[in-house]
Amino acid sequence: MGLNVYLSGEIHTDWREQIIDGAQGLDITFNSPVTDHDASDDCGVAILGEEPNKYWHDHKGAMVNAIRTRKGIADADVVVVRFGEKYKQWNAAFDAGYAAALGKSLIVLHGPDHQHALKEVDAAALAVAEQPSQVVEVLRYVLTDTLPG
Amino acid sequence: MGLNVYLSGEIHTDWREQIIDGAQGLDITFNSPVTDHDASDDCGVAILGEEPNKYWHDHKGAMVNAIRTRKGIADADVVVVRFGEKYKQWNAAFDAGYAAALGKSLIVLHGPDHQHALKEVDAAALAVAEQPSQVVEVLRYVLTDTLPG
Amino acid sequence: MGLNVYLSGEIHTDWREQIIDGAQGLDITFNSPVTDHDASDDCGVAILGEEPNKYWHDHKGAMVNAIRTRKGIADADVVVVRFGEKYKQWNAAFDAGYAAALGKSLIVLHGPDHQHALKEVDAAALAVAEQPSQVVEVLRYVLTDTLPG
Amino acid sequence: MGLNVYLSGEIHTDWREQIIDGAQGLDITFNSPVTDHDASDDCGVAILGEEPNKYWHDHKGAMVNAIRTRKGIADADVVVVRFGEKYKQWNAAFDAGYAAALGKSLIVLHGPDHQHALKEVDAAALAVAEQPSQVVEVLRYVLTDTLPG
Amino acid sequence: MGLNVYLSGEIHTDWREQIIDGAQGLDITFNSPVTDHDASDDCGVAILGEEPNKYWHDHKGAMVNAIRTRKGIADADVVVVRFGEKYKQWNAAFDAGYAAALGKSLIVLHGPDHQHALKEVDAAALAVAEQPSQVVEVLRYVLTDTLPG
Amino acid sequence: MGLNVYLSGEIHTDWREQIIDGAQGLDITFNSPVTDHDASDDCGVAILGEEPNKYWHDHKGAMVNAIRTRKGIADADVVVVRFGEKYKQWNAAFDAGYAAALGKSLIVLHGPDHQHALKEVDAAALAVAEQPSQVVEVLRYVLTDTLPG
Amino acid sequence: MGLNVYLSGEIHTDWREQIIDGAQGLDITFNSPVTDHDASDDCGVAILGEEPNKYWHDHKGAMVNAIRTRKGIADADVVVVRFGEKYKQWNAAFDAGYAAALGKSLIVLHGPDHQHALKEVDAAALAVAEQPSQVVEVLRYVLTDTLPG
Amino acid sequence: MGLNVYLSGEIHTDWREQIIDGAQGLDITFNSPVTDHDASDDCGVAILGEEPNKYWHDHKGAMVNAIRTRKGIADADVVVVRFGEKYKQWNAAFDAGYAAALGKSLIVLHGPDHQHALKEVDAAALAVAEQPSQVVEVLRYVLTDTLPG
Repeated sequence: MGLNVYLSGEIHTDWREQIIDGAQGLDITFNSPVTDHDASDDCGVAILGEEPNKYWHDHKGAMVNAIRTRKGIADADVVVVRFGEKYKQWNAAFDAGYAAALGKSLIVLHGPDHQHALKEVDAAALAVAEQPSQVVEVLRYVLTDTLPG
Repeated sequence: MGLNVYLSGEIHTDWREQIIDGAQGLDITFNSPVTDHDASDDCGVAILGEEPNKYWHDHKGAMVNAIRTRKGIADADVVVVRFGEKYKQWNAAFDAGYAAALGKSLIVLHGPDHQHALKEVDAAALAVAEQPSQVVEVLRYVLTDTLPG
Repeated sequence: MGLNVYLSGEIHTDWREQIIDGAQGLDITFNSPVTDHDASDDCGVAILGEEPNKYWHDHKGAMVNAIRTRKGIADADVVVVRFGEKYKQWNAAFDAGYAAALGKSLIVLHGPDHQHALKEVDAAALAVAEQPSQVVEVLRYVLTDTLPG
Repeated sequence: MGLNVYLSGEIHTDWREQIIDGAQGLDITFNSPVTDHDASDDCGVAILGEEPNKYWHDHKGAMVNAIRTRKGIADADVVVVRFGEKYKQWNAAFDAGYAAALGKSLIVLHGPDHQHALKEVDAAALAVAEQPSQVVEVLRYVLTDTLPG
Repeated sequence: MGLNVYLSGEIHTDWREQIIDGAQGLDITFNSPVTDHDASDDCGVAILGEEPNKYWHDHKGAMVNAIRTRKGIADADVVVVRFGEKYKQWNAAFDAGYAAALGKSLIVLHGPDHQHALKEVDAAALAVAEQPSQVVEVLRYVLTDTLPG
Repeated sequence: MGLNVYLSGEIHTDWREQIIDGAQGLDITFNSPVTDHDASDDCGVAILGEEPNKYWHDHKGAMVNAIRTRKGIADADVVVVRFGEKYKQWNAAFDAGYAAALGKSLIVLHGPDHQHALKEVDAAALAVAEQPSQVVEVLRYVLTDTLPG
Repeated sequence: MGLNVYLSGEIHTDWREQIIDGAQGLDITFNSPVTDHDASDDCGVAILGEEPNKYWHDHKGAMVNAIRTRKGIADADVVVVRFGEKYKQWNAAFDAGYAAALGKSLIVLHGPDHQHALKEVDAAALAVAEQPSQVVEVLRYVLTDTLPG
Repeated sequence: MGLNVYLSGEIHTDWREQIIDGAQGLDITFNSPVTDHDASDDCGVAILGEEPNKYWHDHKGAMVNAIRTRKGIADADVVVVRFGEKYKQWNAAFDAGYAAALGKSLIVLHGPDHQHALKEVDAAALAVAEQPSQVVEVLRYVLTDTLPG
């Protein structure tokens, strides 16, 4: 058994790298959204033409990014969604809902401060972790029956 | 043609009442989550037994609320998701993602301040409104071909 | 057995009225897109705010109209798509493809001049008619076993 | 992440070659309908027997071509639909509707003259481009995070 | 609990009437294909225009009949398929396969002579009966918990 | 909002009556399997003919009962599965798995002794109750926002 | 583009070999049911235990064969169903209905004598051929754009 | 044709090894749940944090194990479910129901003592075996047309 894992959510810390590094040697294909903030914001207008109105500027980019996001979630066996300390991160919660409706196995990753606010998201998950290393351990256990320590 | 409309999101203003009142006379069935904040938080433990740990307290409630939320979204033709001025509102974004994955027609309702943060949610919507009255006008037009004014 | 029939396509002749009138007495619910051309073009900006750019003006309207179109096709047992003599009518062909992919029974209505250009659309249909009265006769036969004459 | 891309629509210009050439080096599998106009028109009767009636001649061919078209769209992550300057091109719009109903990511490619007539098709798309090179740039960005220039 | 039951197959004996009569008082909606043999054969050309070629004559009729058959099976909870003593009855077996693939509860009705030839069809069924009265008893038991005698 | 609730599992105590009685006044349609143990065991042979082999005797009955069970679960918004003190009750766990795979909201009802043995079933549920009255309270809350006491 | 093709139906002539031989060099994976008549009839009892009753003997075998048949059809892009000159061949028509309901591209292969009896099956097909070589030509055209001659 | 086979159920005898060993040389990918009883029970708390309450201890583990179980069943063509002599084994019956609802080919493996208690599970199966060697023979026959002996 191998796994296809999509890493959604926060783009300002290195949690994706921690998970991918920690999972070396496991039969996992990782996918992610574009994590270059500026490219992600501007991709629509940079390719398909300028928009003077900020709303449509954002809209065009969000649509182009959706090509990648939908493919990443559709192909995934497991979707990990990370909520960081800052920002609204509504796209992360949107991805979690999208993945849940498709019946994907959901792992949510967030600090204890967000427990109450994320209770509906956590309730749709099969695992709720605080540290990227815990996500790695879940994936390792699922694929190899091995517990840490 | 009649419509089943689910009203998801913010529970601290009267936007649901504004839409339901405004839509009187239209062939629409409205459903909503439980909007009594305390009941929504405590329903799990009040019915199924106390939990000393706040996480499981929240979890039990979120699971019970999901019975209603899933039914409401599954039955809906149109899902309206309102993002208010305050709080994280991750459950609103989760519902939006869930509805989008099921192919529901999505209407997002929020003020202009949230445009950038909600661009991925808006990109999945068929209408983005700032006022509840605009949602009413969209529903009226869809059902009766009538434009405002 | 009753039928839900969606009447898609051309909006400049009275073919819908001919079918609905001819089908009186049959257990059929008919739905259609908005057929007021101006309302259909302007609904987006009239409700959700002006757009100086004609592309977004059109886009907003097309999105709002999609709420009705999707519901109409999703609910339908039979989708009738009419191609008239004029205009590109790409939305009609789009609806036909959409309905075909959902496994709806498709009836295509067009004059003999369009046979070659519509061959892929006709190939997805269960009936190809030239006159609205033939559509009525198909529906009458399906519901009552009665052939004309 | 790799992509399977289906190139639907106009067959009289070299837009497919431009996209395939431009996308060299990217992990993309391209599929297309048969683009030999005569073979596409005559395949049914050439293999399965002559038809004196032009309608059934066309019909037999359209059915055989549908084996390829359905497979191509079903396998695709992204469906690009090109509308050229000439002809009715209803099969292109049909493919777009078919792809949209299956939840495929849709990219529409057409000149500015067709904006109004294609507004319903564009409204179902995640990207609307005027040039094949823009389609290449969208695919490159989706797969490699790289913006042009 | 009520049931929607589709009665497919043989049209030359009164087995449908026996079942419908026997089931009086039960909460069942029955649907059937057109059972007027001549109307069923000729409906296509009678409505949509003559065909000199017998194959297309038959084809047009089969397509029109499919509008009713598909609707009947799609709406059904239970599909009863009757194989009589005569003819090939491939449409009956086709309906059985179609119903099985959709997950419908299948009841097959045939005499003991056909057991070996129908073993693949019977293997997809939840009940195999020899007499219409047995089908009535199955439906009565399912709806009312009542066994015969 | 109304609910369709299927009551699966144990047939030797009056838990179904407790729930149905307790839920009087709520907009709920309840369905259940046949709870007459002898009828349930013998329905196959009583209607479709005797079987000397006990395995096929049981098999015929289980198939006929499946017509009702599948319909009951397919129509349900909520599936309640009760595990009693005695017997293997594998059909109850089978129904729970079947309902979970269809995305139904699952409520599991069992005493504390079975917690460890039912952990996989409970993990698929949105509520785990020990008393029928708790199931009633969950349903009342979901439909009316009202908490007990 | 490659194709997965399932060859269903008649097992007493060499039509499968003709198609597979003719298709050499094309990117096609062929699958078939077990075509050893005796093995197919006896597989159930030979592996799972004798049955004195011929009905259950047949039933056990048909169930085991269904493991292969379902997999073969589920994996297929194209299902070819051959009706020979003899026998009832209800399993062939059942497979055709099953494949049609799953949206598979269907090619039916039969002589002209069966045209009327197979009109409902042919009406669900994208190609109707009389010779195995025509099936090969369809597959070659679909994969390589090449017409015969 | 190759097969993906998921081996669910009893973990205290070597039936999985017998099947995997017996099937050597066949084109089969086998998957299983974690069969280390202690690891399976404790995986949740070992990775995601201790729980003083045994119910949540079990729950966390069952959720993590579900990531593997769901993937294993979703990927499977054939699900084999083994019921041993001891324990409640409700998770085995749950998996059987889950697999049945997804339309997987189900093989049930149990001793004659359990026939009556498992009649509903057996009724959903395509083969019921008493010995692991019979499961191997079924798989060998399905893949190679070869009967034992």
